[in-house]
Amino acid sequence: MPLGRRAVAEFAGTAVLAVVVIGSGIAAEQLSPGDLGLRLLENSTASALGLAVLILTFGPISGAHLNPVVSLADWLGGRRDHGGLSTRALGVYVAAQFSGAITGALLANAMFDRSPWQSATQARVTGGHLIGEVLAAAGLVAVGFAVARHGRGVNAAAMAAYLGSAIWFTSSGSFANPALTLGRMLSDSFTGIAPSSVPAFVAAQILGGLAGSSLITLLYRPAARPR
Amino acid sequence: MPLGRRAVAEFAGTAVLAVVVIGSGIAAEQLSPGDLGLRLLENSTASALGLAVLILTFGPISGAHLNPVVSLADWLGGRRDHGGLSTRALGVYVAAQFSGAITGALLANAMFDRSPWQSATQARVTGGHLIGEVLAAAGLVAVGFAVARHGRGVNAAAMAAYLGSAIWFTSSGSFANPALTLGRMLSDSFTGIAPSSVPAFVAAQILGGLAGSSLITLLYRPAARPR
Amino acid sequence: MPLGRRAVAEFAGTAVLAVVVIGSGIAAEQLSPGDLGLRLLENSTASALGLAVLILTFGPISGAHLNPVVSLADWLGGRRDHGGLSTRALGVYVAAQFSGAITGALLANAMFDRSPWQSATQARVTGGHLIGEVLAAAGLVAVGFAVARHGRGVNAAAMAAYLGSAIWFTSSGSFANPALTLGRMLSDSFTGIAPSSVPAFVAAQILGGLAGSSLITLLYRPAARPR
Amino acid sequence: MPLGRRAVAEFAGTAVLAVVVIGSGIAAEQLSPGDLGLRLLENSTASALGLAVLILTFGPISGAHLNPVVSLADWLGGRRDHGGLSTRALGVYVAAQFSGAITGALLANAMFDRSPWQSATQARVTGGHLIGEVLAAAGLVAVGFAVARHGRGVNAAAMAAYLGSAIWFTSSGSFANPALTLGRMLSDSFTGIAPSSVPAFVAAQILGGLAGSSLITLLYRPAARPR
Repeated sequence: MPLGRRAVAEFAGTAVLAVVVIGSGIAAEQLSPGDLGLRLLENSTASALGLAVLILTFGPISGAHLNPVVSLADWLGGRRDHGGLSTRALGVYVAAQFSGAITGALLANAMFDRSPWQSATQARVTGGHLIGEVLAAAGLVAVGFAVARHGRGVNAAAMAAYLGSAIWFTSSGSFANPALTLGRMLSDSFTGIAPSSVPAFVAAQILGGLAGSSLITLLYRPAARPR
Repeated sequence: MPLGRRAVAEFAGTAVLAVVVIGSGIAAEQLSPGDLGLRLLENSTASALGLAVLILTFGPISGAHLNPVVSLADWLGGRRDHGGLSTRALGVYVAAQFSGAITGALLANAMFDRSPWQSATQARVTGGHLIGEVLAAAGLVAVGFAVARHGRGVNAAAMAAYLGSAIWFTSSGSFANPALTLGRMLSDSFTGIAPSSVPAFVAAQILGGLAGSSLITLLYRPAARPR
Repeated sequence: MPLGRRAVAEFAGTAVLAVVVIGSGIAAEQLSPGDLGLRLLENSTASALGLAVLILTFGPISGAHLNPVVSLADWLGGRRDHGGLSTRALGVYVAAQFSGAITGALLANAMFDRSPWQSATQARVTGGHLIGEVLAAAGLVAVGFAVARHGRGVNAAAMAAYLGSAIWFTSSGSFANPALTLGRMLSDSFTGIAPSSVPAFVAAQILGGLAGSSLITLLYRPAARPR
Repeated sequence: MPLGRRAVAEFAGTAVLAVVVIGSGIAAEQLSPGDLGLRLLENSTASALGLAVLILTFGPISGAHLNPVVSLADWLGGRRDHGGLSTRALGVYVAAQFSGAITGALLANAMFDRSPWQSATQARVTGGHLIGEVLAAAGLVAVGFAVARHGRGVNAAAMAAYLGSAIWFTSSGSFANPALTLGRMLSDSFTGIAPSSVPAFVAAQILGGLAGSSLITLLYRPAARPR
């Protein structure tokens, strides 16, 4: 598949992912003012289902990474076994993902008749939340690589189930995606994150991605001798 | 499959789809008076699950379009690659879908012991909502064509997941279907739409359908040379 | 598969189905006193997931009918094409289903530390509700036969999705099962039905089952000539 | 697969399972203070989705038992047909599961910025709850063995659906796992269990596991003669 087309897929897919996460968050905030948990349930359900659809739609074109941590892990794995993203493709993917996430955030704001350019105000950094982000990104990468051997249907369902669960079981809300974290910074709504919290979250996500990738390598490497 | 039988499938399938969307909306309105978001979660869950079942039940007969925008996109694609609906079949499908949606709306009203003939009162047109409808229909068509290569189980699950997500991430509630929009005009309940809002919504849906179809053509056309 | 073992499967499966529906209804009633819709969402989600599991567990043994209307439609279809239940097996299945549902209702009551023998008090008959029951049973049988050609995974998911949707889109709550209706008569809780409402509901269910079976025969019969 | 690697998978999988169940329970408790049912719906949804993901991720390594009752039933079955866990592997699995559950509970507490070492205070033993635990574990084992013949995708979905349903239809909340019960003892939050309730719950779980294993043996044993 030509790299240009893969870039379009990563751009469009990450843009829609940002619309899904931010848009459903705005809808939930408007419709369920009384209970934060219900709002998160609405947001997590819409996000999980939307992610599955995006993987099915864009997976055959670009692999549907939609996440710089996933592309980074793929590139790292490829350096070892010569099958992942090339260094040039990594750069293109990450650029498409960040610009897609920004575009999606603006579109979500506009679609809900809000000012397109905004800056979120929710400070999110605590010690527990950073543990949460490390765990969220580690799980995301580990699950992604473990289920890659299945067909795309199971693959998409697994990633959706992971997101729908991790939003709840991590204390941080499972951002687990630096591009999406940047997009969320641009909408002052339920799923937003204040700019001051972004660097620590992104660092935790990269650390988690490396940890998840190591766990899978440890478990799935060819066994010397079965017993 | 004979065209008459396909017409019965499109009629029955779209009628039940209207019952699913409108009926679950009435139930949610009656049972959850306190929180609009909870009501929408009930309605979106029932609608998504119901759509999956309809695709599995009527797909082998007619393809389970259940939506004039989908049939239009199929006809357009077929003019290019000689595989879609014929012009005559397009007319039959669309007529079956509109009459099915009207029948389903009447049935939903009657089933909930309400007056069968009603006119909805919810004005829904805003700039953001029309962006929402364009996006909703574009996504519906894009996902539908992207997953057509999978088996019907994955196909049905993908369309259901799309609907369950798009109802939340679009500001407009993701009508994305001119026949269903007409049906919703005939029930003055949670999922209704005032007649004055219908033309703009339908125009946005057709525009979105064309955009979604173009995106998929761009991404999935045979690649001249991989690199 | 020996008929005795199939009877055990129908008995155990219908008993657990009654526990699932009635038990989750009692739990929802106790935990969500404030909103009837939320209670129904909890009950419908648990019931749909539970039905899928029962079809996967008992399907390979008995076909997992768990419902006299389904067994009746299977027997009727078999008289035409010589593939369904024998008349003797129909009697055994229906007896196992009714005794299973009664057993499950008693177990659900006991498990929630309630008096085992109870009589429900909710009158449920209205004109709209009977239309709802006809539609619910017609859909159940139609979907069941339409998806029978798929593998058991899709089959189970389709029946679960149907139930999770129909509980919401029908006005009657989609009982659609005479054995389960009898079981629900024996628990004075959220999912109960007063004895006086049972005969009309069961008649509507049988009528619906015949209608659904006819629709599928109409659509899926071998086509004389494709066009 | 080397036993050491299987032990790592059981340890990590059970640890994450404890994080999923306990963590999502803490999140639900914090975000939905008003309605216990909504809180349980959030917790049960996250737990079911998380279990599916864990089975897909660790299943190819260790079988993803993540539960001493499942390992025990596998060992017992293997003594009859020579295909299950060896006695040594049973010991390793169970040790990995218990230490994983304890680790996961500590991690969940820390991630939500709570004191890591806690003792739960919820007394849970009633006659009905013990019936519930027997039923929950019997169903878990029966479903697990009945769906083992399917592919891992269906397998994971079935176990998730079972958990998502059983949490609602059993009066006890369907712990059904001695290792997880120990982990829950170590977090004084929504999903906790007081130490004094643990022995009766674990005894009921073991009893249920044996009952579920017997039912499946009865139904699925090779038939002497079909009729």
